[in-house]
Amino acid sequence: MDVAHTGSAEQAAPSPATSMEAEVDDEIQRATEHTDASVDVVALGEQLLGTWADVRRTARAFAARPELHDIPGLTLAEQRERVLAQLHILATEGEVNRAFPAEVGGLGDNGGNITAFEELVSASPSLQIKAGVQWGLFGSAVLHLGTEYHHRTFLPDIASLTVPGAFAMTETGHGSDVASIGTTATYDEATREFVINTPFRGAWKDYLGNAGLHGTAATVFAQLITRGVNHGVHCFYVPIRDADLEFLPGIGGEDDGLKGGLNGIDNGRLHFTDVRIPRTNLLNKFGDVDEDGTYSSSIDSPGRRFFTMLGTLVQGRVSLDGAATAASAIGLAIAVTYGNQRRQFTAGSDTDEEVLLDYQRHQRRLIPRLATTYAQTFAHDDFLVKFDSVFGKPEPTDEERQDLETLAAALKPLSTWHALDTLQEAREACGGAGFLAENRLVGLRADLDVYVTFEGDNNVLLQLVAKRLLADFGARFTGAGAGVLARYAVEQAADRAYHGTGLRSLAQAVSDFGSIARSVHGLRETSAQRELLTDRVESMVGSIAARLRPASRLSKTDAAVLFNSQQNELIEAARAHGELLQWESFTRAVDAAGDPGTKQVLVWLRDVFGLGLIEKHLSWYVIHGRLSPRRALAVTAYVDRLISRLRPHAQHLVDAFGYSEAHLRASIANGSEAARQNEAREYVESRRASGVEPVHEKALRSRKHR
Amino acid sequence: MDVAHTGSAEQAAPSPATSMEAEVDDEIQRATEHTDASVDVVALGEQLLGTWADVRRTARAFAARPELHDIPGLTLAEQRERVLAQLHILATEGEVNRAFPAEVGGLGDNGGNITAFEELVSASPSLQIKAGVQWGLFGSAVLHLGTEYHHRTFLPDIASLTVPGAFAMTETGHGSDVASIGTTATYDEATREFVINTPFRGAWKDYLGNAGLHGTAATVFAQLITRGVNHGVHCFYVPIRDADLEFLPGIGGEDDGLKGGLNGIDNGRLHFTDVRIPRTNLLNKFGDVDEDGTYSSSIDSPGRRFFTMLGTLVQGRVSLDGAATAASAIGLAIAVTYGNQRRQFTAGSDTDEEVLLDYQRHQRRLIPRLATTYAQTFAHDDFLVKFDSVFGKPEPTDEERQDLETLAAALKPLSTWHALDTLQEAREACGGAGFLAENRLVGLRADLDVYVTFEGDNNVLLQLVAKRLLADFGARFTGAGAGVLARYAVEQAADRAYHGTGLRSLAQAVSDFGSIARSVHGLRETSAQRELLTDRVESMVGSIAARLRPASRLSKTDAAVLFNSQQNELIEAARAHGELLQWESFTRAVDAAGDPGTKQVLVWLRDVFGLGLIEKHLSWYVIHGRLSPRRALAVTAYVDRLISRLRPHAQHLVDAFGYSEAHLRASIANGSEAARQNEAREYVESRRASGVEPVHEKALRSRKHR
Repeated sequence: MDVAHTGSAEQAAPSPATSMEAEVDDEIQRATEHTDASVDVVALGEQLLGTWADVRRTARAFAARPELHDIPGLTLAEQRERVLAQLHILATEGEVNRAFPAEVGGLGDNGGNITAFEELVSASPSLQIKAGVQWGLFGSAVLHLGTEYHHRTFLPDIASLTVPGAFAMTETGHGSDVASIGTTATYDEATREFVINTPFRGAWKDYLGNAGLHGTAATVFAQLITRGVNHGVHCFYVPIRDADLEFLPGIGGEDDGLKGGLNGIDNGRLHFTDVRIPRTNLLNKFGDVDEDGTYSSSIDSPGRRFFTMLGTLVQGRVSLDGAATAASAIGLAIAVTYGNQRRQFTAGSDTDEEVLLDYQRHQRRLIPRLATTYAQTFAHDDFLVKFDSVFGKPEPTDEERQDLETLAAALKPLSTWHALDTLQEAREACGGAGFLAENRLVGLRADLDVYVTFEGDNNVLLQLVAKRLLADFGARFTGAGAGVLARYAVEQAADRAYHGTGLRSLAQAVSDFGSIARSVHGLRETSAQRELLTDRVESMVGSIAARLRPASRLSKTDAAVLFNSQQNELIEAARAHGELLQWESFTRAVDAAGDPGTKQVLVWLRDVFGLGLIEKHLSWYVIHGRLSPRRALAVTAYVDRLISRLRPHAQHLVDAFGYSEAHLRASIANGSEAARQNEAREYVESRRASGVEPVHEKALRSRKHR
Repeated sequence: MDVAHTGSAEQAAPSPATSMEAEVDDEIQRATEHTDASVDVVALGEQLLGTWADVRRTARAFAARPELHDIPGLTLAEQRERVLAQLHILATEGEVNRAFPAEVGGLGDNGGNITAFEELVSASPSLQIKAGVQWGLFGSAVLHLGTEYHHRTFLPDIASLTVPGAFAMTETGHGSDVASIGTTATYDEATREFVINTPFRGAWKDYLGNAGLHGTAATVFAQLITRGVNHGVHCFYVPIRDADLEFLPGIGGEDDGLKGGLNGIDNGRLHFTDVRIPRTNLLNKFGDVDEDGTYSSSIDSPGRRFFTMLGTLVQGRVSLDGAATAASAIGLAIAVTYGNQRRQFTAGSDTDEEVLLDYQRHQRRLIPRLATTYAQTFAHDDFLVKFDSVFGKPEPTDEERQDLETLAAALKPLSTWHALDTLQEAREACGGAGFLAENRLVGLRADLDVYVTFEGDNNVLLQLVAKRLLADFGARFTGAGAGVLARYAVEQAADRAYHGTGLRSLAQAVSDFGSIARSVHGLRETSAQRELLTDRVESMVGSIAARLRPASRLSKTDAAVLFNSQQNELIEAARAHGELLQWESFTRAVDAAGDPGTKQVLVWLRDVFGLGLIEKHLSWYVIHGRLSPRRALAVTAYVDRLISRLRPHAQHLVDAFGYSEAHLRASIANGSEAARQNEAREYVESRRASGVEPVHEKALRSRKHR
């Protein structure tokens, strides 16, 4: 530990303003006796690589290849061409079919597949997402919603990129509410074909990657109608362009044009007028129509069938969680490196300017975000393991799938919002230099912007998590009121989009808060943090449930109004739940760390994360009597102290993410700033030494005054 | 008031979870009896136009001209060419010399000048900022730092854009810390010239608009050295390129290349090697060198001289505050309009989907930001009036200048951060459509990103405000400790960048909190909000001052460490102060509103802003005993209630900003969304009416079950 950084801070501890503040200060002082610790960067780096460390290492080395990198400033057309070419490199050399079953040349390795994909974000988010469209959405729809015929017929050309494809689910009129899409696929017994139609402008497929230019086929989601009955949304394989990339008869479309980012992807719109496809192009794993038009499905309930189909596509959210976390790590690696080299203003010295990261505010801006990024890295690995275990089973249960989907709905919003927040703070922390494209931060942020609303709008996803929490709450308290409540919540959710049950159960009832947070040491305890974080989720859900109880006595309209009055709080409860999950993962990772010095630093970092969450919601803890005002004051003081303690380790902690210059590619983070500082300092020193440096008017005046 | 929107919410009020929550709910219920109100959009619009309403109206009409608009997707070179051409239109038709004195053809109208400039943001932020570089920085440096010779010699060509120029202050090595720049201007008595030099790479001028391509001259800030003495930073007029846009001898540079936004501006770097300019090119209003090299200045103190020179450039911050607020208003106009048309998910009905803005969460995302944008609009007008009055004086006092600078340092950070936050929330609230360039939000946000770090980094500015607050605090409590403290704070600030004194004095001591917040009605009272907001600023400053008191006994290094330990809290105190100023402006505007219905709605909106601030810092109020837990709970409940009450007025409130389609230019806000919704609905209805709509499998099943 670099004593120079913290020694003097301990020495000149702030003098208190009030007696309560004074007591808290003293106590913090005693509780944070100086402890030596150092980070084993290599070992920590290995831990951060996670369960599929080897796959991640290989994929990261692959992502370092210059031909896969974004080039800022290309035209829209050039960007799209470049990314398409990169996609072909990937198809040839990238093991894109890692998740495919062995019979079509894959490895059946779901966790490794996502691991490899998400690493592409360091090369180019456009490449990551275009690859995701081709193999993670278009290909996965064929894989998971189709059967052996489709696998054999379509997957090889999808894997090789012979057929670039669009995943045609979203419509201009319907994003999150997939069940309500307007496109229809009506079975015609006479010709044994489905007839695809877009009945009005709002039913045009929209925002589809590969639809603007390159796609020659699409997996089209449409209301399946046969014999006068609408069996709900199903997916169909539909060729859309010929070899010259002209639309096939009955198909039209538009380019979505320039976007706020991800411009290497040709998003576009598609519409269908009496487009006929063979009956066998229905991806029929969960629902089929025989030649005479009879519908059949292995899943009786239309609602459950819908959610099962959509649930197979959860991997998009898994990879976004990983990619967003990687982007946050890259942004912090750039900003922390620069903050450790860039000097501005003198403070305690007459001549030496301070390194930015020595300023308390700068630390407050970057180190808590570093803590959150660590939490997310560990939570993502747990998420990947869960995903791999569910997708590795031939027939996962509904509960397993739903647990996974709820986990995805909790983690993806938090990590994608965190990426935008972190990349923005990193860019601001680098000042004007952060705004230059050559320093990566603005481009990454622009590309990641849409991660918060695609593959499930973050607010919609969190609401689903909240409904699940309510249902679990209802299931535990099977009194009449709660039962009604739970039923209401489930109905709401089941009618709508991705739904799940069987979430990590709410913590054991927290019976006794007398024991915790009685001292600063108390706040540091893992068990105290767990109790505080868990109790808040549980209490929020319980409180909302009680407010919703009258819903059973109300009309459908009034019940909806009542539910709406709790929507904001519901989403906040879901966020608290997601944060708790991240904290739990971080805590497990701390336990798993081998090297004692590293473990110590990780404990501090986990505490910054955990106590930072408590600080963020401090009013809740005080209002609800979980923390006394005095304890609440101690939270902030203690977080401040931990941050200054972590400051000397900040560079090691970002270095442990393991990104090289080939991944960061920011000219402010490659040492040139330090070189410039040294050059300037040497110039001034040599001038001083040779006596040619002019004296400053200020110095002259103060001499006169003496 | 549209009863349909709020009536049912009042009817189905949430049922309480705990007895405290129950009491609060009941009380809120009683306190917010249904009140009719409606907005007079025209009258409110007039009020929002502010003191220079006519100038603003004219400038806004000018900004509606298509040839002044950004075109997304142009190459870097095309964008720069386009904006340069727009700048010529402005030079010809735009009254850009409105602030210039009459003798060089201007009107001496400072307030109107800024008003007109900031309206350009709706056409193109690049145009706004490039105009700001040319006339607001480069031209203003000549105007405010030069004397009559410079005005006559240089201003006409600057006004006509015959000479596009760069404002060469920032260096690669020094941004916010202008006093420490490395470029030198050494007087050579032999030739009666200044010799400009960039002694090392870190001293290159950097991030300068017009320096990349178009500038043929620059106002260069450099350390003035004569007769072996460095008299500190002064400004020099330096030709940099010839008529063919080739660099003049001794001058070199680089293009800053692509940025995160504002790519219509050719930012670049400049360096100087023995570049000679006539002695008379020193802009000599505040410091001069005579032919034999003797330095003279009307301002004795080098520190005060420096701050006076820099203080003349405050108008950049005025216009950024206005432009950022305008951009927020535009973003909200787009998102609220779309949110009032876009439907997604059914809730209380079997068939009709809900308009997005009827969802509580959506309201929570947009309406408080609308309240803040109103607060900023009114605060900006007060700021403009203050600016105009100070700059209208031939010789404003130091105190007047410093008050103005402190106001700028308080408001510019808040409004520019708010713009990024609001444009981002608006873009997310519009989902994928918000991410398309054609809907403006992403482009505006990208362009405004750099507003938070240029013309004074937001964190640095807030720290200056905080130091001023500390100094004022010290001046009021002239005890030994506080005196030392104040001196320390002033020294810190005076050594550094923009400094001011004489700030709007901290509120009268808040003696009795027993009277306020005793009921929900209490929270609504203007006086209660004022007391709560003022008390927090005052208490935070007092608490920090007490903690800093030991600084006088410490070494310079230890005092710096102590000061640093309070930096984060200092910045938060400054933010609280800025928020209070905004709240005061909003409150004055409410009083000034004529129409009773409009006034009522503005009161609700002001309450959302004021109570929203209290909610944001709720833990402070509870921990420090200003609000009981019960009152604290009421704050959130009351904000929720106010938001739902404002919901029916949201469209009127954004319409009152007065932007037309020519300013919004977002295809999602021009009614096409509503048209699509209607088309879809009519299609389904006509199919139902004619009996060709297929029955849904779900409906069949529930029939069977009956």
